Amino acid sequence: MHFKIEIAAIADAGLQQQLSARIDAKTKPPGSLGQLENIAIQLGLIQGSSTPRIVAPHLLVFAADHGVTEEGVSAYPQEVTWQMVMNYLARGAAVNVFASTAGLALKVVDAGVKHAFEAHPDLVDRKIAYGTRNLAREAAMSMVQAEEAIAAGAALARELAATGTNVIAFGEMGIGNTSAASALMTRLTGLPLGSCIGRGTGLDDSGLARKREVIESALALHAGARAPLDALAALGGFEIAMICGAMLAAAEARMVIMVDGFIVGSALLVAQALAPNVLDYCIFAHASSEQGHAAMLRHFNARPLLDLGLRLGEGTGAALAFPLVKAAAAFLESMASFSQAGVAGRM
Amino acid sequence: MHFKIEIAAIADAGLQQQLSARIDAKTKPPGSLGQLENIAIQLGLIQGSSTPRIVAPHLLVFAADHGVTEEGVSAYPQEVTWQMVMNYLARGAAVNVFASTAGLALKVVDAGVKHAFEAHPDLVDRKIAYGTRNLAREAAMSMVQAEEAIAAGAALARELAATGTNVIAFGEMGIGNTSAASALMTRLTGLPLGSCIGRGTGLDDSGLARKREVIESALALHAGARAPLDALAALGGFEIAMICGAMLAAAEARMVIMVDGFIVGSALLVAQALAPNVLDYCIFAHASSEQGHAAMLRHFNARPLLDLGLRLGEGTGAALAFPLVKAAAAFLESMASFSQAGVAGRM
Repeated sequence: MHFKIEIAAIADAGLQQQLSARIDAKTKPPGSLGQLENIAIQLGLIQGSSTPRIVAPHLLVFAADHGVTEEGVSAYPQEVTWQMVMNYLARGAAVNVFASTAGLALKVVDAGVKHAFEAHPDLVDRKIAYGTRNLAREAAMSMVQAEEAIAAGAALARELAATGTNVIAFGEMGIGNTSAASALMTRLTGLPLGSCIGRGTGLDDSGLARKREVIESALALHAGARAPLDALAALGGFEIAMICGAMLAAAEARMVIMVDGFIVGSALLVAQALAPNVLDYCIFAHASSEQGHAAMLRHFNARPLLDLGLRLGEGTGAALAFPLVKAAAAFLESMASFSQAGVAGRM
Repeated sequence: MHFKIEIAAIADAGLQQQLSARIDAKTKPPGSLGQLENIAIQLGLIQGSSTPRIVAPHLLVFAADHGVTEEGVSAYPQEVTWQMVMNYLARGAAVNVFASTAGLALKVVDAGVKHAFEAHPDLVDRKIAYGTRNLAREAAMSMVQAEEAIAAGAALARELAATGTNVIAFGEMGIGNTSAASALMTRLTGLPLGSCIGRGTGLDDSGLARKREVIESALALHAGARAPLDALAALGGFEIAMICGAMLAAAEARMVIMVDGFIVGSALLVAQALAPNVLDYCIFAHASSEQGHAAMLRHFNARPLLDLGLRLGEGTGAALAFPLVKAAAAFLESMASFSQAGVAGRM
């Protein structure tokens, strides 16, 4: 790799004690805000501050196409990828609605969609190629492309950090990308494929069986691609690689990473393999109903904020969970202490 | 009872089909928004409309004192009730922070706090008395008081409905009120007390044992109080009774009811016993970590939106879940359909 990422662990016993003391002084029984208290502490540790603030949060939807769609692994045709990008730009998709109500600025990143887009203020052109190659027959991308995608993602995160943004929520769009994600997960976690595969946008039983065969043979074909970057190049996607790079740079810049569902999680698997401390910066938005996500969350030892049976992708789960992160920051910042409010403590 | 509540079931097969068709035409795989799709349909059925809207949503925090505190059933002294009311009015409590970020207008209702408050624009004075009597020794309130509290709550909900509000989120404050709620739950569900009791704001083991003894003897003392209103008068609290009345009138006016945690749930137990269809109007915000709430949610056959280990009360869970309800209404209203967006459907 031609770039270097150094990610520090966030642990800081002194600061953690300060944050806990600040939380326990608030007018509420100790511990009574449950998981929100953990999030508040995590925000503080990430920012290295007992008064963390959320600044200019962004949701980035990384889109790319997948050569493996020619194997018939999706319920939807490949052109839905670029059509949905147009839908995002026209603000008609679920992620637009949820990002808007959550106060997340939304940008769409063309990581490798098989379509020539006209320029648009909400579209960031980082196209590596017009879709990956078919991972069932050859490597999805070259190592040069994989590194280019990671570097482009990292540069994007650094640009946002330079403008003050300290939270990035990650979303994705790419017909066929659950196949790439399942293959990557199987390879990087060592779990059996059966625990890493699901119906994606809605395959029926025979479609699922077909998808399974395709991924099995791809894993056999790329049996030698075991190192994280080799696996990413052989089995991944441009959006997955770019998300991985953006996550690494976001953590390096001490930004909060909101992890959406299964595909974004597969990018995190690669990032984790390259720099394990990246997990310290992650808030897991939700448990998706995509089969495979439960095992992935266990692998990360993650406790997601929501469990609503979502399986839409796009970053919708991250957008829906974001108000809870804002609430965690807000109670730490704005709640009165017992002494400020003149409220008696425990007897 | 000197008032009459008629609550219609919300079921309407034709409208439900319309709503489902509208949701399935949106640019997303069918069913991929999981529980939010159920909420969107529920909102439509409650409002009798395929285009439901959320208007002027309110969070009402009902506060009252409990004579049973003299038995030593709480970790906090009784004056915390009025002190926390002052904290709400000064906007320093958790519920203030969360209601504000969620866009909920907050009012505090004095249902029976043991304190004389000065007038305040955010305080609604509906004081029945300066706290209930000690339910371990006599009925918490007279039947006249119980009916007065229910009627006052109902009037409040109707006043809000008259100004256009169509969502009420319910919260509460009252040192000692988990004891009243546990006693009511035991009586109204028939579950053993052990399934209905917990540590409240943070009792230790001996405190919990003491609370259990007190409630057991209260249930024996009021063994004859089995009808819902009799149980409410003997074992309840003014805030619980007033919430019950407000819920019934809210449902009658076809408003959405956001149910917070254990105490608000105990009020719903009484409302359900009086008019079972009230459940159709309820959205369950969260699974509290107060032991007893899990069994209560099973009794209601409820699937709450959040499970964050909260046990603060005040309506904090309802406020934290409210953005998800807004998101459900927003995707139904604002997402583009496949045909509007020019996106291809399933193959």
